[in-house]
Amino acid sequence: MRILLVGASGTLGTAVADALRVDAELITASRHGDHPVDITDPDSIAALLESIGTVDAIACSAGVTPFKPLTELTRADYLAGLTDKLLGQIELVSQGIDHLSDGGSFTLVSGVLAYDPIVTGAVAATVNGALDAFVRAAAIELPRGLRINAVSATVFEEAWDAYADYFPGHKPVAVAEAGRAYVKSVRGRQTGQIYRVGY
Amino acid sequence: MRILLVGASGTLGTAVADALRVDAELITASRHGDHPVDITDPDSIAALLESIGTVDAIACSAGVTPFKPLTELTRADYLAGLTDKLLGQIELVSQGIDHLSDGGSFTLVSGVLAYDPIVTGAVAATVNGALDAFVRAAAIELPRGLRINAVSATVFEEAWDAYADYFPGHKPVAVAEAGRAYVKSVRGRQTGQIYRVGY
Repeated sequence: MRILLVGASGTLGTAVADALRVDAELITASRHGDHPVDITDPDSIAALLESIGTVDAIACSAGVTPFKPLTELTRADYLAGLTDKLLGQIELVSQGIDHLSDGGSFTLVSGVLAYDPIVTGAVAATVNGALDAFVRAAAIELPRGLRINAVSATVFEEAWDAYADYFPGHKPVAVAEAGRAYVKSVRGRQTGQIYRVGY
Repeated sequence: MRILLVGASGTLGTAVADALRVDAELITASRHGDHPVDITDPDSIAALLESIGTVDAIACSAGVTPFKPLTELTRADYLAGLTDKLLGQIELVSQGIDHLSDGGSFTLVSGVLAYDPIVTGAVAATVNGALDAFVRAAAIELPRGLRINAVSATVFEEAWDAYADYFPGHKPVAVAEAGRAYVKSVRGRQTGQIYRVGY
């Protein structure tokens, strides 16, 4: 099995890479690496996909959104989050269809804030809610038995020191659990699912 | 009670207007009317809000998204839906905060396709999922006791002749039920709710 993982750095990306490379050929792409990619740029995604050929799974753990108090958020902030984490991943799907083998899968990253909001998290919530709905909708139209799921995790234990103040009373989860959800999406047969990790 | 309704034409807008104008001063705005507004244009929203002064509720039943098979959807299609129904309504909230009396409410329109997708509905699903999550997130940060809810309806009986082929097996609902949900949002005290109508 050949797998492309976009966003292979950081707490989540590293854990997902560790989980996905077991018994697979894992190709990792990130902003700065052997396979550089900027998911906000459709041409950059096209260049990446052309360079790797056909794979059995395309997974993504990349995507950022601004965090600010609601009343300070500008239209540019919403557009930044939508262009990066939402349209970046949708573009990966739109273009990736022709680079997946029959029955192959997409696994996107969304997040808990769509359902369990925190202060300053309105853009993240908006983007994550969009992603979950996109996954449910795309699943019923993908050709050739292609599948699509999302992994939606709460805050990670490994990042808790930095984020605890923003998530009062939330229970962090080990990032390895998110890695496990990616494996379930890639190696299972389900589609249109939102795998909630730690909540 | 003074209420601003944006999107007062069409099947939904007409029903919402009929429901909201009972015992209220209802100001209706739409693309072509006494109070013209283009929700894709922040300046147009600003001009509308300045012209009406302070209101106790801002409701919206406007917003369109393209419908196409998943594999024919372009980045421009996603951007069109996001710019109109999503960012148009978010802009109405961002700017509307200063035009609502204390305890006033926003009521946005989303839709069933976020949860119960149909073929050609990926952009609508994405936008609706985003709106529902935005409403949950914005509700915990709005100042001065302001509230926000969304009305998410399935297809309407009054539009069934035109849409039945796209919604096989779905059960349409009377549009008056959606009007009732707007009244619940405006005159009740709830916030952060997604009122599911007919599903």
